[in-house]
Amino acid sequence: MEKEHIGIIGLIAGACTTVAFIPQLTKIIRTRHARDISLYMFLIMTTGILLWLVYGILIRELPIILANAFSLALCAYIILAKLRYDRGK
Amino acid sequence: MEKEHIGIIGLIAGACTTVAFIPQLTKIIRTRHARDISLYMFLIMTTGILLWLVYGILIRELPIILANAFSLALCAYIILAKLRYDRGK
Repeated sequence: MEKEHIGIIGLIAGACTTVAFIPQLTKIIRTRHARDISLYMFLIMTTGILLWLVYGILIRELPIILANAFSLALCAYIILAKLRYDRGK
Repeated sequence: MEKEHIGIIGLIAGACTTVAFIPQLTKIIRTRHARDISLYMFLIMTTGILLWLVYGILIRELPIILANAFSLALCAYIILAKLRYDRGK
């Protein structure tokens, strides 16, 4: 397969695994409830995403860099939203 | 940086973003409750992980292949567990 086509698959993959966090974030904000969400999941996920970002920069793969930079912001926001609403209960 | 060291960062990153799903899965099974978890998040995430797996195979990056194969299984299990416990309420 051509390099361009592989890059497009990577971009769609990155878009999915990044965009996926949006419905979780909006659900937390809408319901103001996040008890069932594992804080450990999002702490470990955030660490991993940060390392994927470093990895992407080192191997110079733009899909990996873009996807993980945005995912990092969304995961950090989910952690903050969870901590906020869990404390309020 | 040497290619081997970059590979190690990729392996640790992949381990984190894969292992991260384990505490979420065990939390759902332990509490038998998954209402706050977004089904859309895990459906989109599973699609993305499947595409990352294809991408990893095409660019022959072992960390991407291994991490996403395992993540795929965990996410599918989380979706099944959520559907099961949501239905029971």
